[in-house]
Amino acid sequence: MEPEPLVENGKINGQKTELNIRQLEISDHAKGFVELLSQLSTCPSLSQSEFEARFADLAALGDDHHIAVVEDPTLGRIVATGSIFIEKKFLRGCSSVAHIEDVVVDKATRGAHLGQRIINYLVDHAKAAGCYKVILDCTPELRVFYEKCGFEEKNVQMALYF
Amino acid sequence: MEPEPLVENGKINGQKTELNIRQLEISDHAKGFVELLSQLSTCPSLSQSEFEARFADLAALGDDHHIAVVEDPTLGRIVATGSIFIEKKFLRGCSSVAHIEDVVVDKATRGAHLGQRIINYLVDHAKAAGCYKVILDCTPELRVFYEKCGFEEKNVQMALYF
Repeated sequence: MEPEPLVENGKINGQKTELNIRQLEISDHAKGFVELLSQLSTCPSLSQSEFEARFADLAALGDDHHIAVVEDPTLGRIVATGSIFIEKKFLRGCSSVAHIEDVVVDKATRGAHLGQRIINYLVDHAKAAGCYKVILDCTPELRVFYEKCGFEEKNVQMALYF
Repeated sequence: MEPEPLVENGKINGQKTELNIRQLEISDHAKGFVELLSQLSTCPSLSQSEFEARFADLAALGDDHHIAVVEDPTLGRIVATGSIFIEKKFLRGCSSVAHIEDVVVDKATRGAHLGQRIINYLVDHAKAAGCYKVILDCTPELRVFYEKCGFEEKNVQMALYF
């Protein structure tokens, strides 16, 4: 039996591997997508039908909603993700604003700049959609990371929990 | 000719008037909805067909997008507005988060607590939609206003402009 490959700092068994970014697919349910999200926030496991129902809700939005994932081809696991949705406004001549949400990189794969690559990919999606800006909310500790990605601190986020 | 009514502090010609909140309608284009938004941000005027096209984009989202307005019945003008959209997630068992955007009260009508009424209305919409939280971004000066509406400061907003 082959030993489990060692994934560390973006290398697999010491070799750099190509980790491509692509859109979420239904088959990613079996590749640990939901487990990865649970590293970010409360995220109980979902049945295949629950996953497919929510996938369909989001797919109905077309290019106005996009979830990016990075799959580790050796492990067959999703190791990074981030989502973006396009909000259509009346402001600025019926312009659009992109909102980035739910960005997480698997603990074992951190240090490989996957977070930055996911953000760049989502920013490109927003640009292609004709948005005039991309916004996101983060904890103060992540400010420096997002500044490296080209963002600047702009406002404060207020929240009301039910 | 009747003189223009004096709208001040929620009263019209010194009389308290009932200003109800309702959903945006196509006819609100002729009632200064876009001009009101221009008090918030850059908002050039829109032709009837541009307005109707964007109205249709948003109506297609059903209850997942809602624009609240307050019309002054005496003036036949929109004097306050705020919008909300529901973001569907995989997190927290396929939960939803509501985002409040583009809240503005006409300068001449400020002081009548229309801002707070608009926010309460949108929060009720989020609750009815089963969201687990409502979030919004604002300038630091508006923090106190949103705290009065039941919100708490949570994170920082980062932005990237194209």
